[in-house]
Amino acid sequence: MDISIRAIRDLLEMALREDIGIGDITSDSVVPANVMAVGTILSKDDGIVAGLDVAEEIFRMLDPEIIFNRLVSDGERVHFGQNIATAEGSARSILTAERTVVNFLQRLSGIATTTTKYVEAASGYHATIIDTRKTTPGWRALEKYAVRVGGGHNHRFGLYDAVLIKDNHIAAVGGIAKAVKRAREQIPHTMKIEVEVESMAQVREAVKLGADIIMLDNMDADMMSEAVKLIDGKALVEASGGLTLENIPAVAATGVDLISVGALTHSAMPLDISMSICSLKLKGGE
Amino acid sequence: MDISIRAIRDLLEMALREDIGIGDITSDSVVPANVMAVGTILSKDDGIVAGLDVAEEIFRMLDPEIIFNRLVSDGERVHFGQNIATAEGSARSILTAERTVVNFLQRLSGIATTTTKYVEAASGYHATIIDTRKTTPGWRALEKYAVRVGGGHNHRFGLYDAVLIKDNHIAAVGGIAKAVKRAREQIPHTMKIEVEVESMAQVREAVKLGADIIMLDNMDADMMSEAVKLIDGKALVEASGGLTLENIPAVAATGVDLISVGALTHSAMPLDISMSICSLKLKGGE
Amino acid sequence: MDISIRAIRDLLEMALREDIGIGDITSDSVVPANVMAVGTILSKDDGIVAGLDVAEEIFRMLDPEIIFNRLVSDGERVHFGQNIATAEGSARSILTAERTVVNFLQRLSGIATTTTKYVEAASGYHATIIDTRKTTPGWRALEKYAVRVGGGHNHRFGLYDAVLIKDNHIAAVGGIAKAVKRAREQIPHTMKIEVEVESMAQVREAVKLGADIIMLDNMDADMMSEAVKLIDGKALVEASGGLTLENIPAVAATGVDLISVGALTHSAMPLDISMSICSLKLKGGE
Amino acid sequence: MDISIRAIRDLLEMALREDIGIGDITSDSVVPANVMAVGTILSKDDGIVAGLDVAEEIFRMLDPEIIFNRLVSDGERVHFGQNIATAEGSARSILTAERTVVNFLQRLSGIATTTTKYVEAASGYHATIIDTRKTTPGWRALEKYAVRVGGGHNHRFGLYDAVLIKDNHIAAVGGIAKAVKRAREQIPHTMKIEVEVESMAQVREAVKLGADIIMLDNMDADMMSEAVKLIDGKALVEASGGLTLENIPAVAATGVDLISVGALTHSAMPLDISMSICSLKLKGGE
Amino acid sequence: MDISIRAIRDLLEMALREDIGIGDITSDSVVPANVMAVGTILSKDDGIVAGLDVAEEIFRMLDPEIIFNRLVSDGERVHFGQNIATAEGSARSILTAERTVVNFLQRLSGIATTTTKYVEAASGYHATIIDTRKTTPGWRALEKYAVRVGGGHNHRFGLYDAVLIKDNHIAAVGGIAKAVKRAREQIPHTMKIEVEVESMAQVREAVKLGADIIMLDNMDADMMSEAVKLIDGKALVEASGGLTLENIPAVAATGVDLISVGALTHSAMPLDISMSICSLKLKGGE
Amino acid sequence: MDISIRAIRDLLEMALREDIGIGDITSDSVVPANVMAVGTILSKDDGIVAGLDVAEEIFRMLDPEIIFNRLVSDGERVHFGQNIATAEGSARSILTAERTVVNFLQRLSGIATTTTKYVEAASGYHATIIDTRKTTPGWRALEKYAVRVGGGHNHRFGLYDAVLIKDNHIAAVGGIAKAVKRAREQIPHTMKIEVEVESMAQVREAVKLGADIIMLDNMDADMMSEAVKLIDGKALVEASGGLTLENIPAVAATGVDLISVGALTHSAMPLDISMSICSLKLKGGE
Repeated sequence: MDISIRAIRDLLEMALREDIGIGDITSDSVVPANVMAVGTILSKDDGIVAGLDVAEEIFRMLDPEIIFNRLVSDGERVHFGQNIATAEGSARSILTAERTVVNFLQRLSGIATTTTKYVEAASGYHATIIDTRKTTPGWRALEKYAVRVGGGHNHRFGLYDAVLIKDNHIAAVGGIAKAVKRAREQIPHTMKIEVEVESMAQVREAVKLGADIIMLDNMDADMMSEAVKLIDGKALVEASGGLTLENIPAVAATGVDLISVGALTHSAMPLDISMSICSLKLKGGE
Repeated sequence: MDISIRAIRDLLEMALREDIGIGDITSDSVVPANVMAVGTILSKDDGIVAGLDVAEEIFRMLDPEIIFNRLVSDGERVHFGQNIATAEGSARSILTAERTVVNFLQRLSGIATTTTKYVEAASGYHATIIDTRKTTPGWRALEKYAVRVGGGHNHRFGLYDAVLIKDNHIAAVGGIAKAVKRAREQIPHTMKIEVEVESMAQVREAVKLGADIIMLDNMDADMMSEAVKLIDGKALVEASGGLTLENIPAVAATGVDLISVGALTHSAMPLDISMSICSLKLKGGE
Repeated sequence: MDISIRAIRDLLEMALREDIGIGDITSDSVVPANVMAVGTILSKDDGIVAGLDVAEEIFRMLDPEIIFNRLVSDGERVHFGQNIATAEGSARSILTAERTVVNFLQRLSGIATTTTKYVEAASGYHATIIDTRKTTPGWRALEKYAVRVGGGHNHRFGLYDAVLIKDNHIAAVGGIAKAVKRAREQIPHTMKIEVEVESMAQVREAVKLGADIIMLDNMDADMMSEAVKLIDGKALVEASGGLTLENIPAVAATGVDLISVGALTHSAMPLDISMSICSLKLKGGE
Repeated sequence: MDISIRAIRDLLEMALREDIGIGDITSDSVVPANVMAVGTILSKDDGIVAGLDVAEEIFRMLDPEIIFNRLVSDGERVHFGQNIATAEGSARSILTAERTVVNFLQRLSGIATTTTKYVEAASGYHATIIDTRKTTPGWRALEKYAVRVGGGHNHRFGLYDAVLIKDNHIAAVGGIAKAVKRAREQIPHTMKIEVEVESMAQVREAVKLGADIIMLDNMDADMMSEAVKLIDGKALVEASGGLTLENIPAVAATGVDLISVGALTHSAMPLDISMSICSLKLKGGE
Repeated sequence: MDISIRAIRDLLEMALREDIGIGDITSDSVVPANVMAVGTILSKDDGIVAGLDVAEEIFRMLDPEIIFNRLVSDGERVHFGQNIATAEGSARSILTAERTVVNFLQRLSGIATTTTKYVEAASGYHATIIDTRKTTPGWRALEKYAVRVGGGHNHRFGLYDAVLIKDNHIAAVGGIAKAVKRAREQIPHTMKIEVEVESMAQVREAVKLGADIIMLDNMDADMMSEAVKLIDGKALVEASGGLTLENIPAVAATGVDLISVGALTHSAMPLDISMSICSLKLKGGE
Repeated sequence: MDISIRAIRDLLEMALREDIGIGDITSDSVVPANVMAVGTILSKDDGIVAGLDVAEEIFRMLDPEIIFNRLVSDGERVHFGQNIATAEGSARSILTAERTVVNFLQRLSGIATTTTKYVEAASGYHATIIDTRKTTPGWRALEKYAVRVGGGHNHRFGLYDAVLIKDNHIAAVGGIAKAVKRAREQIPHTMKIEVEVESMAQVREAVKLGADIIMLDNMDADMMSEAVKLIDGKALVEASGGLTLENIPAVAATGVDLISVGALTHSAMPLDISMSICSLKLKGGE
């Protein structure tokens, strides 16, 4: 699924507002209004690109006359020194947009690149790599998009589109059975119920209650294998907690359906991307 | 300088809106409205805390009756297992707020912690560690606050509050001299002019033009030393580009006034923070 | 689940803005600022009340000093002439709020009342009465809340929280099988897939593809019975299209799990509610 | 007067946001991006169409490349099975817009259709059918537009553009005379003063005070006739309260100038409208 | 009529945002957080105060703990050196609010003071001094309030609450008669129709057409007198164009009902107001 | 530096909203939709034009099909009767926009014209005329732009982009030295520090502390001359307080670098500008 620009427009507005404020003092005072330029976005590392729609939209918001050309697509692997896209138009506009565009691209491409590493670590197994709600506040839709670009799948988008009953909910209401029953009575029939479990007894209870998804929280690989056998296809099984690139293969080998990794979003290093700008002839000049 | 909650309210609103949407289906259906709880925020690593005002404001926005208690202050070092704060009130409200609060605290404390490491690496020298505009879009004010909490200083806040003439500006107008002249004619007298230089010839020209700050871009330590001598206090000297924890001492030893590090914000690992919630008696019960 | 005031604040702001604009010319010019009053909200018909949180919030937004007292709760049945709530405070504020408060209460109580009639028509059967997305634009969260108050259940909240594959989707991609496959590959594992079917052949295919919910579109009762038998518990079964108070029992008798009724929201008559205001002593007077 | 799209843009944004949220999961996952389609909006009942500008704007907001063709104009009568308009463009965009577009058209056309019935009931008499402030909160401008489309006229738009002194105002200040005097002293000279009366004594007083409009509240037809004679053209006369299609002719026959009917907006049944979508060739295909 | 704070909150937010941005660098860095202060707002000229509700609201928005004390009320005359109000609380908050508060008070009090001069110039005559739509964009509600505080009355609030047919409208439709007829057919019955006239022939036509208000545009006093006689109470008469403090008495003497003066708002000099701040003891100190 | 339309869009939206509200009743009812017109903006006085970008944007916001033609540029001097620009398009749109466009142009051109007078008064001297923060709330960016158009320079934009230590700050912290020290420790190195002084002793201290700018508050010309000599180029010198067109030459002659004048913005008379509209043929007619 593509990113919906409509859904992130408030963030883009906020980003431009915080950087530009009353105006780009340097470009507006130093660069004549009629200087044209080409900005070339290039990667200074190997990785997966994500966020070109965002980059294009930021240029468009600042100056609808900028022409944005993609040299690769979201999801493509790029290499050190490879050009990603160009923007051609008013030098002032391109200089003003530069940092915001690059900040978005670096972070989103970093998440896509990180996700791909986890997906590759689980390759050969049935398990799907999924994200969590441990995203940068304000960036949920964008970061979940970058995970998809990197080959991962999304967990629920927020508190509003699925039920996930955790230990705290269970404690507050007095038992898994009560919690599941209360949820089922009230939620739309279109929603699934996931239950977090920490012991085999809880696994058994969750299965009995007809949970759609069972999240194994911080279990070791042996216990996960046992849980997978016990659940036996009656619910989707999600491994969660303490998962790293190193232990992904072992976890995936247990037969779980899903492996959720907070690090996809909260600990992804940015992909090193920069923009080089070369001025062109004056608009209207020869 | 403290963080201005007014300046970040739009981001907090956006964060709550993206996570909660039409409602927290799980808590609202599972947890009875009258269950009270205490949420305890604790650190699962060693680091510097930042963002307690943000945490308190999020709880307040969701439920003004939650009582937030700080056990440490922003800027304090915490250790593995140490409690940071507690929130007492409606279990539903605390469960709904949990993830957003923790997501903010983790990121901001991570930046403060990272900054402190850089500051310590430069200790014993005259140089100040400063941030850049390589911040998470939407988070500029917050991340620059976290840098201050960690002992760093801020570079300009945006394109609007200082002039920074880079190679692209110089190219677009045809030389440093023209660029500085055009800026000086137009900008408020309250603003400083910083010029990015890449060679000793440019250093000399920038000094001659009366630049307030000279940014040495991607120079090695020897060249920096030479530039510092040449500038000789006539401008502030900023080292920029390719700076890591490892080379900070060598750079600081060159005598530069400022060392700007994009990694403070774009590559800081989150501090591992979580919230544990224990339900209490029913409100009005015994 | 209660209504989240946060989720509807924009609508309440818009409602007050459109009615009050630059000011309530009549009350502000005619009524002295220190006149106090009690407004009594009463029902002029029999029905189910919904929207008291909304009413209270509107008074609060206009004047935080108004004291709002509920005489019944959302979901209670009231009778002709029965008082629902009172608001005590500045006469000006109460007069200004009157129409907006009543407009909200009438519509929401009308939906709750209508829903209850449908729920009663299906009583004795297994089937649940659910709403649709045929809500008043801007009012989705509120109207779905009113349906819950009336004893109904909610279908999905919007296009974002469940998959519902209709004939148009099927046509666009070339067959149910392709449509379900494409959806399953991309959506979060937390989401269910519902498929709209119009023939027994499609019912069979939907079951085979593992649809979580099967919507029988505009089938007669005999065909529905046959579909229910064929599906045999392998998916939830939703009856949809052309459902009225009169045919609900026959449809419910077919054994479907869910009966979705657009009329709950788009054709509910308002409950006749009004506010009578009596002025009190002057504030500060004796 | 046409509807001002500017004045309703906030409502349209809210409508799209509440339905689409983070994205249309079904269309985005199932329908390939390059499938083109034609959506045909058709009426499944007889009535008056209203809202085509709104429909076009919603398509435009979602996807500026959609081509919207009107087959009728607002205010035209359509019959069962008649096509109203078509939208041609990306299948995804049309599917995503479908429900919101139809929800607006159904409600607005329902109000226009209902209004026309009232207008026809009063035909042959001098009286004008007018609306009230009993509109759906958030929809004031739109619903008043639909009333005009149906041949009705508008009462004041809100509390800000005319004075309407009701019993509560009179009670609060101590008499009609004081109320009118206080209003006249303070309001712009461009505004009219309407007074609500319940007895012939009040009618007489209102005339004496020079009220511009006199609202006869819940009077029977005989009393209205008497009031009309007494007022004798010195003020506009508005009949209000308990008016139905059945008693409109008798009320109109009393000679009142205006008949205000809350039911035009709060109790109008939607006109049954739907959209059928047929997919076309792939964009770029042959 | 008082000012509605709700109606101007967007402007106040915008005002604080444009002045404070990311923070008040000076106060936040220089003044310790626990310093308390009293700010005294005083007049440095003679005039009429307007805007104390605005001042109080700005302090409240910045810091709800500030205590605001009024020493005079809106509409009172103050003299050189007279104190108007005090604000007590955090020194930082008061320093941050100072300029915005004073900027609002100076402008609004200037308008009230100017208005009073015009009102006094017309004293002894029947005519009322009224404002125009020549207000500062964004400030309409506030400036019209200040006119009322100064003893003037308001013309229409905007294009939405009354009809004013000017020469351009007449030309566009082809004659006064057509223009009035078209308006009367479409506008709410609660609205008045004002017609701008430039000749006695037009005056006669406007009377014949039943205009509620006739605006004499740029006529000299003799012509105005003649028009007043001709109109003879059949419509309100408004003098407009080229009116100054000097010619007000002569114009008022013609018997016109209303004199509209754009200068009340667009050319009012600010009243010289400033705030002096004295620091107090530290909070918590002795 | 040009004005950034992005930075003022909220104000323009607010301006249109407050004037138009639910619609321009007069134009929409009187003027047929297909009447085309040309509006000509002309100056009725001599002065400097400012705000043409704003005028164009307002027309564009209301109706993107209006063609706006500039006959002069911002900063040009116009004479009585000279045309400034034309707008061609729908008569309704032009009539609706007229007042808002003119209100903006009058105020901004008035500020540019006033500024030019002050700049001319200081001509022949070294001093630069600068503005203050005494701007119309909501209009900061626009009014500072108009000052630049008139040949003046800008002081800081707000509280966020430079440090200005006033007497109140000094008092609150206990001395200039402490104040400067606290500021320097915390602010970005890109920011300058200005100190307000009232005595020669304070001038000396400010120089010693290395203030970047020293503001001489309400000093007479002799004292200013003495201060300029004492400062001797070690800081920029700003004259402030009580400056009028009359005393500008004397102040400029003291050798100060900057003369700040609040009257540029708070007391500028509007330039008399109006729009005349002539209707054209019907669209589509012959």
